[in-house]
Amino acid sequence: MTTPILLTPGPLTTSARTRQAMLLDWGSWDERFNQLTASVCEQLLAIIDGAHSHHCVPLQGSGTFAVEAAIGTLVPRDGKVLVLINGAYGKRLAKICEVLGRDFSTFETAEDAPTTAADVDRLLHADQAITHVALIHCETSTGILNPLAQIARVVKQHGKRLIVDAMSSFGALPIDAREVPFDALIAASGKCLEGVPGMGFVFADKQALAAAEGNCHSLALDLFDQHAYMARTGQWRFTPPTHVVAALHEALLQYAEEGGLHARHQRYARNCQALLQGMADLGLRSFLPAAIQAPIIVTFHAPQDSRYRFKDFYERVKARGFILYPGKLTQVDTFRVGCIGDVDQAQMRAAVTAIADALHAMHIPLPSIGTPA
Amino acid sequence: MTTPILLTPGPLTTSARTRQAMLLDWGSWDERFNQLTASVCEQLLAIIDGAHSHHCVPLQGSGTFAVEAAIGTLVPRDGKVLVLINGAYGKRLAKICEVLGRDFSTFETAEDAPTTAADVDRLLHADQAITHVALIHCETSTGILNPLAQIARVVKQHGKRLIVDAMSSFGALPIDAREVPFDALIAASGKCLEGVPGMGFVFADKQALAAAEGNCHSLALDLFDQHAYMARTGQWRFTPPTHVVAALHEALLQYAEEGGLHARHQRYARNCQALLQGMADLGLRSFLPAAIQAPIIVTFHAPQDSRYRFKDFYERVKARGFILYPGKLTQVDTFRVGCIGDVDQAQMRAAVTAIADALHAMHIPLPSIGTPA
Repeated sequence: MTTPILLTPGPLTTSARTRQAMLLDWGSWDERFNQLTASVCEQLLAIIDGAHSHHCVPLQGSGTFAVEAAIGTLVPRDGKVLVLINGAYGKRLAKICEVLGRDFSTFETAEDAPTTAADVDRLLHADQAITHVALIHCETSTGILNPLAQIARVVKQHGKRLIVDAMSSFGALPIDAREVPFDALIAASGKCLEGVPGMGFVFADKQALAAAEGNCHSLALDLFDQHAYMARTGQWRFTPPTHVVAALHEALLQYAEEGGLHARHQRYARNCQALLQGMADLGLRSFLPAAIQAPIIVTFHAPQDSRYRFKDFYERVKARGFILYPGKLTQVDTFRVGCIGDVDQAQMRAAVTAIADALHAMHIPLPSIGTPA
Repeated sequence: MTTPILLTPGPLTTSARTRQAMLLDWGSWDERFNQLTASVCEQLLAIIDGAHSHHCVPLQGSGTFAVEAAIGTLVPRDGKVLVLINGAYGKRLAKICEVLGRDFSTFETAEDAPTTAADVDRLLHADQAITHVALIHCETSTGILNPLAQIARVVKQHGKRLIVDAMSSFGALPIDAREVPFDALIAASGKCLEGVPGMGFVFADKQALAAAEGNCHSLALDLFDQHAYMARTGQWRFTPPTHVVAALHEALLQYAEEGGLHARHQRYARNCQALLQGMADLGLRSFLPAAIQAPIIVTFHAPQDSRYRFKDFYERVKARGFILYPGKLTQVDTFRVGCIGDVDQAQMRAAVTAIADALHAMHIPLPSIGTPA
């Protein structure tokens, strides 16, 4: 049986070479494994040109663990976070602040409306107590892109600190630490770097991290301790996911061979374009306008037909070789298709064909084609 | 180049079959992956015969993440923990309580002295404020075994709750949830089950977990939420380490095929016996008396010789195909050799030969053999 291609926001389809890197066992105390970790961190920092300004602190667990770790470590207990929300992941940032007992306020726009730098400027003027701003770069619940560079500039002008969840954008969309000021930017192994899931990492501003001792609410999630231990010993503080680290290392080598961020971005943009074009030809509408659509994941309106059930649709597309993702909007019936992972335009076009065939088999008319016989 | 065999407390040497299970990508939302997770939890519960009394709550990250999650979720904010210490992992339990702001007291014995049930009885009589007792089953820093069943009985008699870190014993040493009462027992994928590292799991008493809503200091580490979400959806709350879960599933199938806990215990006991016998033949002394030595990891006194350097010794043994583990005692110079993983007696004997050859090459006399030429 062939494994379906994952058109999801991660875990996603990785290369055979990346998965084969997991066929060795590594001692977590061994020098060779320490070198692997150091090389991963070095390659990650190079992507944002951040070696001078930031530390890369890897962390066991999913991306959310790393987001919580960044907030818990870098926001002092008497800090206040302005959380910018236009989707489920922004809401999760607010939830983290709430659970951690950090003071916070939220600013929410519609799921198809990016937060603007002007909004942030106004909000920071209005509330001097705010110390940190937390932002989702690409909100995976729709695929919307928020204007990171402009918001970062405004936050800096106000003398405040920025925490960026760049989970689904990092590695594919350009972020330059020399031009975009932030205290923390967070991503994970199993997204645009095309590693396997199991670890996140935080790019932490060196000065901010040095001042963060004792802030954290958690032992396991304390990035100050995690970094200090690794700087001293070369080792992870607690047992690392050795095979996940080895896979990420191999994925990063392939990332460089492909041509780095620019080439990765171009491939995903071509994937996204092939998807949007193919779906438009079928008459299936995407939720976001092109200007704010990141080439990461696309939300589509579900067909307006009483015979449409996502579960049934999903299974039929899966039987044709592609795994889609459910929608995450409360108001509108949608489904999502990822553009990321070890996939190309030809596979995206094949996915569109699978979608058309599945809907045909469900006797759901496609606007562009009409009712199937 | 051949991969060295890991004689460490984990990550350890896994079977090729377990690693090959990571050659597929899995969708974290997909029904087939949900079935994999459910099967893992079911197999884990069967090992302790705990399906009626406990939930198995898997958690992303290392074992320490799961230990912190268990304490944070199951100890109410006004609870008080008695932490039993005879090594580094016991100290870590106390550190977790401290960081989480849970009230706690400690009882520390020497690193070669198990905590006794009589100690616990006396301590619980003396301090009525204690609500929970936290214990390390097998303390990996030496390899010492603490009398879990007896301590659990005393804790229960006092109407208190028990939290057990069984990281390095679970799967190899018998623990029966029908006879040993506990609120939480914690272990991880990359130990005696011979999976790869990247996830832990907590067996949580059903009633205790149901009463734990809102206790936790962390979003990511909240086992109440983690369980509730999984019970409702079949999915992990945040991105699971899909390949690690697949490897654990495959490792559990092999565990059953080998003959389950009894067979695993017997193999490790044979490994431990071969190691102890071989090392005794060389004149190298183990730190613990046999009666309290778990067949998991053995601490040996380092040779008393000015030419001995652990780093040099380690590299020489590694070049001969085996990765050892440093000692973790502050007072005595030691090194450790694990008995667990996909290894057998013949490999343990080969490891002893590698150790003898390495010491010989370092011109360090072995008591039983005398000074090398």
